[in-house]
Amino acid sequence: MKTLIIVAHPNFEDSATQQFLQHNYPQEDVTWHRLTDQQIDVGHEQALLQAHTRIIFQFPLYWYSMPAILREWQDLVLTAGFAYGRGATLGAKEFGIVVSMGQPVAEYQAGGKEEYTISELLKPLQAMAHKLNWQYAKPLVISQFQYMTVHQRLQLVMQYHQYLTQVGTGFDAQQAWYCAQLQKRIKASDDSEVQAKLKLILAQIQANTDELTELHWTVDMIRDAEET
Amino acid sequence: MKTLIIVAHPNFEDSATQQFLQHNYPQEDVTWHRLTDQQIDVGHEQALLQAHTRIIFQFPLYWYSMPAILREWQDLVLTAGFAYGRGATLGAKEFGIVVSMGQPVAEYQAGGKEEYTISELLKPLQAMAHKLNWQYAKPLVISQFQYMTVHQRLQLVMQYHQYLTQVGTGFDAQQAWYCAQLQKRIKASDDSEVQAKLKLILAQIQANTDELTELHWTVDMIRDAEET
Repeated sequence: MKTLIIVAHPNFEDSATQQFLQHNYPQEDVTWHRLTDQQIDVGHEQALLQAHTRIIFQFPLYWYSMPAILREWQDLVLTAGFAYGRGATLGAKEFGIVVSMGQPVAEYQAGGKEEYTISELLKPLQAMAHKLNWQYAKPLVISQFQYMTVHQRLQLVMQYHQYLTQVGTGFDAQQAWYCAQLQKRIKASDDSEVQAKLKLILAQIQANTDELTELHWTVDMIRDAEET
Repeated sequence: MKTLIIVAHPNFEDSATQQFLQHNYPQEDVTWHRLTDQQIDVGHEQALLQAHTRIIFQFPLYWYSMPAILREWQDLVLTAGFAYGRGATLGAKEFGIVVSMGQPVAEYQAGGKEEYTISELLKPLQAMAHKLNWQYAKPLVISQFQYMTVHQRLQLVMQYHQYLTQVGTGFDAQQAWYCAQLQKRIKASDDSEVQAKLKLILAQIQANTDELTELHWTVDMIRDAEET
């Protein structure tokens, strides 16, 4: 699977969040593609879409919406006959949104400072996904990056990698993704002591996977029961 | 009351809807202001906002959203300290949206071709109005203009004038608006026969206003009773 990150930010250079993500995205099978003020090359953009199976829109939520450059990109690149309609060649994609904001997520609800939920505000992109027959993934919301601790930022890197590269959703898919990451690290390492430690962790996770999966189901069932 | 229409369309010259609206908007107390590809003059735009009490965004719904130029306008013009936040000088406005689309309105609902309602898709603008303390009016939706009959287009002109200039909402406000329009026409006409006819219509409406208002309330009550 190949992932295309389409990055749109009116002040990219001043954005700590975007700089952080650029320095921490997984290089393998992931293409970082920033939209700049230059003329959009439609053929190039369409070729990029063709070459990737997962498409990510990454942007800050200014005025409850995507940036102007990304709106223009939609008008120019997602043309009838290419992306949808008779003779369309693009086909289905997985679609994700990495959205950042300065307010806490809790303000995005009825009665909160921003009044509407992030799901409500991103509806135009959900409608786009619906029209294009792209599968809409739960957005990765990055709120108040500037206040995050080092630990929270490390956690964000993990979530980001997962969002960009994990195949499937749910607990099992997550476990498989963790194991694959550990296996890669083991291969890449040339320190036998580190390798041994990572192998131990991996063996532990693999040994516990069945048990953890069962535990996960049980917790879900308890939660469901509590809600009724 | 003064109304500012901010028109945004990526292909204005090719839009029959926009051309029609431009040729049919009421000149009195209404400013037609089209955003073009030229650099946005922030000071000029802010002065325009200051000088009007009702602000209208007029655009086609491409990709379920407003055009890029209008998004850029938001970022540049609606600045902290001017439109919102500490020291903001702009103050409250009435806010309306005139939105056009090629699909029938009925397709904008769950199960319809477009899946989501126009209310859902315009949520980012509703959120903007909420943040700015602007009063959000029910949008004027223009669907499939190219298929409208002459009669429907005349009706649209009436609705458009009303949307731009009517004070208040509801039946009484509508009646008052009709009467004011007739009075203006009577004053403007130099044909005594036309004047006499208009005066007759006006007198008829005015004589019936109390009765019509009462009738309107009764119908509303019957409807409410039917719904319960």
